[in-house]
Amino acid sequence: MPPLERLPACLMINGDTLLIAHLGYPTKPFKAPLIYNPYFDSIGVNAVVMPMGSLPEDYPALVREIFKLTNIRGALVTMPHKVTTVGLMDEVTTTARIAGACNAILKRDDGTLLGDLFDGEGFVRGVRRKGRTLAGASALVVGSGGVGSAIAASLAAAGAARLGLFDVSAASADALAARLREHYPALAVTTGSKDPAGYDIVVNASPLGMKDDDPVPMDVARIASSTFVGEVVMTREYTPFLAAARERGCTTQVGVDMLFEQIPAYLEFFGLPTTTPDVLRSVAKVAYQP
Amino acid sequence: MPPLERLPACLMINGDTLLIAHLGYPTKPFKAPLIYNPYFDSIGVNAVVMPMGSLPEDYPALVREIFKLTNIRGALVTMPHKVTTVGLMDEVTTTARIAGACNAILKRDDGTLLGDLFDGEGFVRGVRRKGRTLAGASALVVGSGGVGSAIAASLAAAGAARLGLFDVSAASADALAARLREHYPALAVTTGSKDPAGYDIVVNASPLGMKDDDPVPMDVARIASSTFVGEVVMTREYTPFLAAARERGCTTQVGVDMLFEQIPAYLEFFGLPTTTPDVLRSVAKVAYQP
Repeated sequence: MPPLERLPACLMINGDTLLIAHLGYPTKPFKAPLIYNPYFDSIGVNAVVMPMGSLPEDYPALVREIFKLTNIRGALVTMPHKVTTVGLMDEVTTTARIAGACNAILKRDDGTLLGDLFDGEGFVRGVRRKGRTLAGASALVVGSGGVGSAIAASLAAAGAARLGLFDVSAASADALAARLREHYPALAVTTGSKDPAGYDIVVNASPLGMKDDDPVPMDVARIASSTFVGEVVMTREYTPFLAAARERGCTTQVGVDMLFEQIPAYLEFFGLPTTTPDVLRSVAKVAYQP
Repeated sequence: MPPLERLPACLMINGDTLLIAHLGYPTKPFKAPLIYNPYFDSIGVNAVVMPMGSLPEDYPALVREIFKLTNIRGALVTMPHKVTTVGLMDEVTTTARIAGACNAILKRDDGTLLGDLFDGEGFVRGVRRKGRTLAGASALVVGSGGVGSAIAASLAAAGAARLGLFDVSAASADALAARLREHYPALAVTTGSKDPAGYDIVVNASPLGMKDDDPVPMDVARIASSTFVGEVVMTREYTPFLAAARERGCTTQVGVDMLFEQIPAYLEFFGLPTTTPDVLRSVAKVAYQP
């Protein structure tokens, strides 16, 4: 029998419980309640993350009404509502504006809604925790979809000096570059090349690596050992790309790190006591490593 | 250290969790989550009762949107929304129609909303559990407000043959009588007297007994010892009225019984595994006895 202190703490919802909605569809794959709620239990915060499945056609009206609840603090937003959410907020952060997506909603004291996006912030926090400086750094982001846009926007917000963007859709990378330049005029942004040579940070923000026979997203032989190499694919801890970078001696960051690193950012956003990714991993009732 | 099996079971919300909204305002006094959720835990049902505070001006639109959630089963409804709810449903039961209030909403498989009211059903179930038969019985209900209307409607639904109604507002009792006669033409309904003589069942459904200096709601000396005597006041276990009836040898029912007796009715309504009031009392994380 395990010692008493190792038993899971118990969520006891009552009339004072603060609601954090987890909005998306389908709800089945939601994992956040299995991290946030045990954490809230462990520190005695009376809040609960509650999955709420909303279909795309129902979502805008739901957002209008649900944040009028007197005991709601905000929401985690996931597929398929991250893009739609931008247009439903009273205000969105620059990062969410550039990336064109929100994964967090805060109901402010005056009832207005602020949208933010923490995917890229999770990446950036992971880089910092591993000892790298973002201010003045150069970074290559391969993939300009949702997560790539989020990472590029957060790297810019963190003070990166130069960004290289690449996507199989050149128009997608160019559009992201234009949005970045608009909000960060001093940032040097180039597109069209996925050559990792000469960058302080490179990150695969494309889906390449999810399948066994995927090509690597960039030429690993051109990555210097001093380069920080990140990955967003979460279906395996080390993709062939990330494993090759590690073999070259690079400091690496696995996809799941981005997920646990962004939770403290969410907690700060909601005005709740924050913690470290390690604490969150230790209380989580879900295994994230493949 | 207590044995492991005595430790509270843990609510572990995940992507499959069924939501039962607890709608009302303010949420602070809500006690239902402290009964339902430990019960769900104890039997391994993945459902959660979540308090949601809604102001009267926000409530109709909230009801329209929140039941579109893909993982919501229904709602418990409390003050101040019980009357409003009737007009927001696709269908309401006869009991809810007569009483003019709903305290339960079911989202049916086709997405339509059914409203019901279990206050009176709780009273009726308590009477039955204490060995009395409702079919053909006569009952005096003192108080024609929300709870009195609910009890009268449920007594009629349970097959009572004769009801006496009394309220300090004669118009209120007469209006309830008219609604009962409309739906139950064979039921004998009289109003204007609170004389308990000659009834099988008498119940105080007025607030008298909440305060120490309240008069008793009816003349206890006129209650036969064979009469079943019920009370709705919950602020004390035995009101002076109920204590006097018990002293006369009457079988009695305290106010809180009505509350715990109606939970199995809610569970059946939601299509969830049901249980007995005793089991609910044993798992509840709240003390209801004063």
